[in-house]
Amino acid sequence: MASPGTRPAGVMRDGVHVFPVRVYYEDTDAAGVVYYANYLKYAERARTDLLRILGIEQSRLAEAESLVFVVSRCAADFRRPAHLDDELEVRTRIAGVGRASLEADQAVWRDAVELVRMQVRIACVRRGGSERAARIPEGIRASIESLRCVN
Amino acid sequence: MASPGTRPAGVMRDGVHVFPVRVYYEDTDAAGVVYYANYLKYAERARTDLLRILGIEQSRLAEAESLVFVVSRCAADFRRPAHLDDELEVRTRIAGVGRASLEADQAVWRDAVELVRMQVRIACVRRGGSERAARIPEGIRASIESLRCVN
Amino acid sequence: MASPGTRPAGVMRDGVHVFPVRVYYEDTDAAGVVYYANYLKYAERARTDLLRILGIEQSRLAEAESLVFVVSRCAADFRRPAHLDDELEVRTRIAGVGRASLEADQAVWRDAVELVRMQVRIACVRRGGSERAARIPEGIRASIESLRCVN
Amino acid sequence: MASPGTRPAGVMRDGVHVFPVRVYYEDTDAAGVVYYANYLKYAERARTDLLRILGIEQSRLAEAESLVFVVSRCAADFRRPAHLDDELEVRTRIAGVGRASLEADQAVWRDAVELVRMQVRIACVRRGGSERAARIPEGIRASIESLRCVN
Repeated sequence: MASPGTRPAGVMRDGVHVFPVRVYYEDTDAAGVVYYANYLKYAERARTDLLRILGIEQSRLAEAESLVFVVSRCAADFRRPAHLDDELEVRTRIAGVGRASLEADQAVWRDAVELVRMQVRIACVRRGGSERAARIPEGIRASIESLRCVN
Repeated sequence: MASPGTRPAGVMRDGVHVFPVRVYYEDTDAAGVVYYANYLKYAERARTDLLRILGIEQSRLAEAESLVFVVSRCAADFRRPAHLDDELEVRTRIAGVGRASLEADQAVWRDAVELVRMQVRIACVRRGGSERAARIPEGIRASIESLRCVN
Repeated sequence: MASPGTRPAGVMRDGVHVFPVRVYYEDTDAAGVVYYANYLKYAERARTDLLRILGIEQSRLAEAESLVFVVSRCAADFRRPAHLDDELEVRTRIAGVGRASLEADQAVWRDAVELVRMQVRIACVRRGGSERAARIPEGIRASIESLRCVN
Repeated sequence: MASPGTRPAGVMRDGVHVFPVRVYYEDTDAAGVVYYANYLKYAERARTDLLRILGIEQSRLAEAESLVFVVSRCAADFRRPAHLDDELEVRTRIAGVGRASLEADQAVWRDAVELVRMQVRIACVRRGGSERAARIPEGIRASIESLRCVN
């Protein structure tokens, strides 16, 4: 009954969120590999789906509470390239949750090979002119925190 | 055993290829909707997966035979906008197969609402300086043609 | 005094808006050419700059009047590929202006070679849930209309 | 005589490469700001133009010598958001040049406000299956090194 997309796009495995990504032409560049900025897109898709598994839809959060999660810092090691048609996995582990931000360790794998490793800091901000840091709502904080204990 | 990504991303239903797409931040723009060029990305993902269902991997086709499918014409009607977190479906029907090109009717739906309708002409070209039209290999042509009879 | 970017990015020549575009890695794909959807980005940049020459900033239009120009139809012929480092020109001619929409003929050239030809229909819509067609403000309509008489 | 695009897109100022970027709809997302991965595109455009000022065209380097510059590491601080229609500057300083890699400090500014700060490590690799580190050709190395002494 459900449309093909309603199944969750990723799964939790031992406290790690595992999210599949397929490489399409749009992701690659003339060097024949995935363009470096596109790994950040993959990582964001994975984080979005991780929140969705917790029942958090960012579009609703933005509308209902004017809260947006934004990346405030990101460090990425690009170790090996991915190519057209590759099946990748983004593996995400919540490394820390603060009052107004959280830390995630993310990595992109192809089979047993780690291609890219990222550390990402996500801040919760209140939309509008100022975009000031905002407290993560307690329910959401608790949900995210709970992921760290799974294993 | 299989990684989450190995399952086919789309399915055939009555001669129509149905491919799920989720809208992420990367797809949207400051008007709050999916940026118009990104529907062409969705459409390409769907066509790629349709070929994959037939056993055709474009990366292998390019390497083994220097053949690439390229869009030579595309007409799109943007009827209604899609938004962040929407679950969409790209529905693709092969409308015609020639010696060196094929025609596809594609549409992007959200539940029972058609958002975008596209007609796409895809040419088979031989890679290299010239990029001249090339005959579609007979096996591939037959596979694609077979989709038209399903219903 | 002015930062390097303040000079207009394009110019009017005999009623045609000419907008330069450089091809970067981000624009290309593993087939070694500009990815087809990216020509729509180039076209939008050119239309945005054409409006800017007329004194119309879309961000201000959206904030002040909740009006957004959106592409409602687009047909593109992809004749020849562009490659990394190419210098291209987007040439835009206003083909018609209606009460709530306008038509533009756009083409992407590399030197004397036409690579892509596009016909685009742009609708004026009022932002918000409904996104209904809206009348183009008379001042803007007159400005755009004036471009058609230049030559 | 020259087409609008042939003028260099950026300039050197006191050892810093200054590259203008305009924000278009394609760059923004539904939060109303520039999507975080797109700053990496801006940074790459700037690095490409910096090399171009030195007479280095990456497409020719890839064809003639099978050498590609790839980002091997990147750290970015996203301090303040950019918005639609903003005029930005990417400021790039070569921080170090090694045998097979170089380091660049890059920052995105809007007027007197620093929005994003990035440290980027670029490796020179030989294209092909292996993608192994390769020595930067001596002429190129010397050219890049010369930028560090300007001020």
